[in-house]
Parts: sequence; C-alpha cells; structure tokens
Amino acid sequence: MPQPETAFAHRDLLGIAGLSATDIALILDEAEGWIGFNRGKRKADDRLRGLTQINAFFENSTRTLFSFEIAGKRLGAQVSNFRPEESSVKKGESLTDTALTLGAMRPDVVVIRHEAVGAAVDVARVLDCPVINAGDGTGEHPTQALLDALTIRRHLGRLDGVKVTICGDIRHSRVAGSNMLSLPLMGAEVRVAAPPSLMPDSLPDGIAAYEDFDAALAGADIVMMLRIQRERMATAFPDSTEDYHAAYGLTHQRLARHAPNALVMHPGPMNRDVEISGELADDPERSLILEQVEMGVAVRMACLDLLTRARRT
Amino acid sequence: MPQPETAFAHRDLLGIAGLSATDIALILDEAEGWIGFNRGKRKADDRLRGLTQINAFFENSTRTLFSFEIAGKRLGAQVSNFRPEESSVKKGESLTDTALTLGAMRPDVVVIRHEAVGAAVDVARVLDCPVINAGDGTGEHPTQALLDALTIRRHLGRLDGVKVTICGDIRHSRVAGSNMLSLPLMGAEVRVAAPPSLMPDSLPDGIAAYEDFDAALAGADIVMMLRIQRERMATAFPDSTEDYHAAYGLTHQRLARHAPNALVMHPGPMNRDVEISGELADDPERSLILEQVEMGVAVRMACLDLLTRARRT
Amino acid sequence: MPQPETAFAHRDLLGIAGLSATDIALILDEAEGWIGFNRGKRKADDRLRGLTQINAFFENSTRTLFSFEIAGKRLGAQVSNFRPEESSVKKGESLTDTALTLGAMRPDVVVIRHEAVGAAVDVARVLDCPVINAGDGTGEHPTQALLDALTIRRHLGRLDGVKVTICGDIRHSRVAGSNMLSLPLMGAEVRVAAPPSLMPDSLPDGIAAYEDFDAALAGADIVMMLRIQRERMATAFPDSTEDYHAAYGLTHQRLARHAPNALVMHPGPMNRDVEISGELADDPERSLILEQVEMGVAVRMACLDLLTRARRT
Repeated sequence: MPQPETAFAHRDLLGIAGLSATDIALILDEAEGWIGFNRGKRKADDRLRGLTQINAFFENSTRTLFSFEIAGKRLGAQVSNFRPEESSVKKGESLTDTALTLGAMRPDVVVIRHEAVGAAVDVARVLDCPVINAGDGTGEHPTQALLDALTIRRHLGRLDGVKVTICGDIRHSRVAGSNMLSLPLMGAEVRVAAPPSLMPDSLPDGIAAYEDFDAALAGADIVMMLRIQRERMATAFPDSTEDYHAAYGLTHQRLARHAPNALVMHPGPMNRDVEISGELADDPERSLILEQVEMGVAVRMACLDLLTRARRT
Repeated sequence: MPQPETAFAHRDLLGIAGLSATDIALILDEAEGWIGFNRGKRKADDRLRGLTQINAFFENSTRTLFSFEIAGKRLGAQVSNFRPEESSVKKGESLTDTALTLGAMRPDVVVIRHEAVGAAVDVARVLDCPVINAGDGTGEHPTQALLDALTIRRHLGRLDGVKVTICGDIRHSRVAGSNMLSLPLMGAEVRVAAPPSLMPDSLPDGIAAYEDFDAALAGADIVMMLRIQRERMATAFPDSTEDYHAAYGLTHQRLARHAPNALVMHPGPMNRDVEISGELADDPERSLILEQVEMGVAVRMACLDLLTRARRT
Repeated sequence: MPQPETAFAHRDLLGIAGLSATDIALILDEAEGWIGFNRGKRKADDRLRGLTQINAFFENSTRTLFSFEIAGKRLGAQVSNFRPEESSVKKGESLTDTALTLGAMRPDVVVIRHEAVGAAVDVARVLDCPVINAGDGTGEHPTQALLDALTIRRHLGRLDGVKVTICGDIRHSRVAGSNMLSLPLMGAEVRVAAPPSLMPDSLPDGIAAYEDFDAALAGADIVMMLRIQRERMATAFPDSTEDYHAAYGLTHQRLARHAPNALVMHPGPMNRDVEISGELADDPERSLILEQVEMGVAVRMACLDLLTRARRT
C-alpha cells in the first residue's frame, strides 16, 4: 500500500491540463500500489477514516460513480452519493448554489460529474476542499486518461514512444480529449481516426488526424476505441451502422492486417459489433477492457489518497 | 455471534437446488446466532471489514435489497448498491458484460437480483467471488426459503414432519419454487393450492397439488400465503378480487375451520384483504410475517459470513 | 466533542411541540460541540458504531436526507437510505406496514420524511427505536427549527428577546410551524408576514401576524424568508412573480429601510429574485443561509447522539 508521504502539488484534479509528467507518474506509481491490495485478501485500509467523500453526479454514469464509491470505501472514507435528479437542482438551483450547499456540510473531497464543460472548475472555485473532475461535458475526464495510461504502462512497460491510435467520436469525447493531453505528455505518439463530422476543428500539437482508420492503425501498439453514440453515428453514416462498422469498426481481421501486435482498449460501455467486434472485445489475448475497469479503481484510490493528504496531516 | 470456523461446501448460493439438508441446517444454525446480536445493544461486528459487497439489483425489490444491505453492514462490509436502472444496462449492455465489469472492481461477494431465470448462475460463471441469488425471475429465491425455514423451526422446534400449505400463484413464484425444494429436504410435508391457471405444469416429487384451498389447509401447521399480482389474479378470476378472496384468501374463519392451530406466513408485501385478511396478518398470535423479515436479516448475515470465510483466512 | 453523559428526556424527536426550553438548550449546546469537529481535521468519531440508522424518505428532499446521512456517518453509524419510490409503497403498502417491516430489521434510529401530517407520530407508535421527524407534510420539521435557533444564537449570542420576522407561505410551511413554537419558547419575539391567502387561520399565542411585510420588518434582528411554491404564489399574486417580489421579496433596499442591522435566513432551496434577491442571499455580511446548512449537520449529529444514548449504555 502506498505510504502517505509524497506531496502532490495540486489541491484538485480538474483535468490533465495543468498536470506535469511528474504529477502523472506519481499518480500511476501510487496506483500500482493499490492493484495488489485490491486483488488480495483485503485487510481494511482506513487512511481516509472519518473523512467525508461526496460523489455529486449530475449526469448518470453508474460505472464511474461506482468506481469512485468503491475506491473511497476501500480507503475507509465515509462516502455519500448526491443524486441531483431527486433534488432542488430540478427546482432550478444553480450548480454554484448546490456546490456551496454541499460545501457547507464540510466534505473532505468532492467528486463531480456534470454535463457542462467547466463545471468542475466552477465547483472547485467555491469549495474549500479538493475537487475531482469525473467528467465535464465534452471537456475532460482525467481519471479515465490516468487509468488508460496505467493500463498501457503495465502492459508495455512504458508510455514513452508507444504508438496509440484513438478511433471514434473524437469531436465530442472527453476521454479522447484527456488522453490527447496525457499520452503525448508521457512521450506516447497519438493518432486519431474519425469520419470528418466527428473530428474536432483543431487538435492539440503533435496529434495526427486520419479519416482513413486503416492508415491510422498502421504500426499501432495500442488501439483505443470510443463508444459511439448512435445519434452521432447517424450524422456520419446516415445509411447504416454496418457502414460505420465497415469503415471504423475494429475486428481481428483489421488488426491482423494493420497492427498485428496491438492491444485493444475501450472505456466502456461498448456497442458490440458497432465500434468493436464482440469477439475481439472478449479476446483475452488482445483486449484490455476489463483491466481498464480494474485500473480505474486503483487510480481513483491513488487520487483520493493523494488529494486528501494535506487534510490528514 | 457465530464463530468463523465452520466450512461451507459451496462457493455460491444460487438456489436451494444443490444444497444438502446439512448445508441448510448449517445456515440456519449460524443464523440463530445473529438473532440475539440484532436484537441486543449491538457492538459492531467487523468480520467482513475491508470486504466489498456489491448488491446488483436489476429488478426493484427495496425490501430484499435493504435486508442484504443491513446484513452486510452489520458484519462490517463495505456495501455498494449497483443500480442498473441508471446505467449502461439501459444502453443495451449484456448481463455478462455488466457482471464482468463489476468483477473487475474485485468485489468479495455479489448479491444479484434479476428478472431472468438463471441470471445468478450466469453471473457466477464469470465471477471469481461468491454470488448470492436474491431472486431470478420465476426461478429461485434461496434466502427467502431459508428465512422461512428458520422462522418455522424457531416456532415449531423442528422442520421434520411439519405440514406446510403454500397458496397463491405457485406457477410464477420463486418463493414457492425454492420452498418446494427446501422444505421437503428438511422433512416437511408440503401441499400447494392454486387455481388451475396459477398451478405449474409439474411439481417436484412429493408435493401435493390442490385446487381446493380448504382441502389443502386441513391439518396444516403452517400456511404460507403468496403475494398475488393483480394482473395474474385477473386471469383466474376475471370478475372480481372478491371472488379470489372467497376462494383463496386466508382469514381467521377459514383457519378456524380447517387448520385451527396453524401459523401464517407471507413473504410480503401483502395485498391486504386479497390473499390474506388484514386482521389475520396483524394478529400477533397467528402471523409470523414480521418475524420473517427479522429472520431475513439473520439468514443473510449467516450466508454472507459463510460464503466469505474462505476469502478471509 | 460532546460527552455521552447527558440524558435526553424523550425517546423520539417528533416535533418542537412537546420539547421544553431546557430540551432545546441541551440540543443546541451539544450541537455546538460538533461544529468544530466538522470544521477541523476530522478524526473519526464512532460512538454510533454498530448502530443501524434508517433514513426513510417518502418525499424527496435530497438536502435534508444528505444532511442526516452525513451526520450519521460522522458518528460512525451504519446508515441506510430507504427509497420508497422504488418499493412496495408503490404497490399500496400502508405507512404502518412499511414501518413495521423496517422495524423488524431492528434499526437503532429511524429518520422519517413523509408528505402526511402526523406520519412520524404514527411511525413512532409502532417502532421500538427512536424516531426523528424530518418533515411531515405541513406539520413539523423540528431539526430545521433547531438549526435555525442554533444559527441565531451563535450570531446574536442569545435567543431571548431576539426579534424574528418570518415571511412567506406561513400557511403551508412546516419550517414556519416549528419555528413559531421553538423561538417563542426560547424567549424570541416572532412576527409573521404573508398575503392573506398564505396566512394560517390561527397562530400560536404571542405570534403577531402582518399583511404588510415592511411593517413586520421594522426593528427585526433576523428575517427568515421561506421558499415560495410557484403554484401557491399564483393564488396570492395571479398576475406576476414581480408583484410578489415587490410586496414580499427581501432586498438590500428593503432591509436598509426597515431593519438595517438584520441578518437574513432561508431554509433553502431558494427561488432567487422571487422571495429573496440573489444579491442579498450571496452577501456574506447579511446572509446566514450557508451557515444554516452547516448547523444542520451539527444539530442532526446532536439529535442522533442524544436519542441513541439509552441504547448504547
């Protein structure tokens, strides 16, 4: 288990933007320490004992919420899930008012998911405690990028020089957004592939854009497939999901032709046989999808631990 | 409090099918030990401290969910309720994919409720940890049958030779299904009563079927009334609930005539004055309904404790 | 932190009615002890360790539910939220049946919110454990009145002789109802202001009623604004919310004219610029709104602690 000694230079985790390569390496190193803890015969850890963790999820995301809930409880925190769908938010209360109300209850860390870009930044501005961005609209989703980085690093032994192809709705994906910041920072080479309507107007420096998925795949070590919203797919491929799958779906055949050694990732939940074949997703030799989920808990434990250290000493 | 010494021969609790009389007796004996604990001035028990219990309820059942939640917390577990109604399940994710995702978070025990027969078996097949079936469609509901057995044993001192009449929608009830396995295994004599449309096509060996409720009642020690779904009642009695109540409703009068010493059970929630008169349900001399709820917590504590012993030592 | 020595004369907290000034002072004194605890680097308190707290909220109130949940967890209780919207309540189970079912699970304290006046009293009648009323229809909301009293006492150093003006939907507000009992008991002078349709038919002894808000404000030390339901506002002011705001909305200008030193309170959530100007609500020199939220957690910790003492010794 990680020792509570290292200092983290930030009060909040609002995005990959603002983090240094050293920060990211620190989080990944600490997360490594939790993997064995989670897999083993657990003895309780209670470093967050007595601390209040609020998960304020203004947008449904059972998977991410659950990962943060389990992570906090494994550290001994008192975890409470705030469900705005049942609350005064419905009666028109602003995000800032809700955040101030939560803050008055004196939480020790707040995890926020919200449909608006910048929501986590707004909340952090009015709160006294650490804030973790669990996804803000089409903005950032830093813990997803961190768990992706950890998954890659564990399998390839490094991030530096790794060739990563990300494919799907690059335009609207916060997962892509955060990964396009974190991976290059750690020395990886990133290419993105999407139909023109799902490609953003501009990309961070050093990211190569491809309309042709096969070209983007050539020589990749890692292929990250993104969940495609059906309504957005219809913009690019009005005729059929089969056309989308033919152009941008990942299969064993496509991998064999263009990136025979690549490992496959997906943030979940998948549309089987749309962006990725079910057979490939289930192939334990190629798919890291479940390991991403596992790394998610470890990364979130590391973040919760690091961000609350100052409050505990 | 039960001592963590006894070994339980199974990794999972998927149904009464597969359990021996010895297994059932062990669970009931262990549950006995928790009754006093729950009634007393509780000191915390923390034998499941550090362990993650996931309650994955794909079907609403506040009562059963709550019983498992309280049971787990009383043992010190970190309990998290997975609410698929808000999740990717809605987006078409398969049960197996959801189970694998939950499994990647490294739970120590998963309690599952699902509308499909066999769901718990499917989930157990892909998970590394113990799985408890909290109801799978018209399949099994083993902890309900166990709490029923415990309730009877406490009141009559034995299960062997006890005459139990179960009445209601036998065809679709997993409560009936599990009890028709557990009670005969423990030596009880079971009769079931229902209108023809609510009687299954076949019954386990040794179960006697009656269309005439009064005949089924004759000499019963225990009468278990099942909740009747109004839409199903309408199949059997299209004209009125009064007709159903006249034919299959339990009252003090009916008991006095046919089973004057019988005690009354119901898994809840009741339709008062449909399958059972409110007056009878509330009669502390005859009704064991609330005690069933209490035994439910004790039985679930015993199951959670027994199934996680191998992980704790 | 409060010491578990003092005895509280009541098993339940069902309303301000029935409490003495000594009871209220005791709760406020104990709550004072939790304020610093909540603000500081928390070490865990576990005086409720092993105890089961059920929050049974039959009516949505995320804010109050959350406050009770956090309060219980900070004391080490095992807190479970019962969500009747997903339960057999929907299938027609009576409140008493639901309460008996919860009681059979042997909780140590039950917090209930319900839309019917008297619901908490009904539940307390059938349960063996302490019951806290978290709001019963237009009846009482005692912990809100207690947190209001604590907020005032901390700012003015006393309750005796303090002039409090409460404005809004006095007729339907349980917050007003409980405050009209608690504040006079503690020696405060209370005036209420509302349009005639929102004024109750009768008021407790000693409460002065005003149709003219400005007259009610004159010389006030504290102004409590109530949330106005838009459908009820329309009864009094069918033409516009602007008319309501002009007659009964609180602003800096109105305060400056009639109660230049008054502090402002609101139980939340606010309708900004309807019953209170957003600018005033946000003014840290005048508004105690967030402090009320903070005091809510402290008061609820005190109540949970006091009411469970008898079970713990």
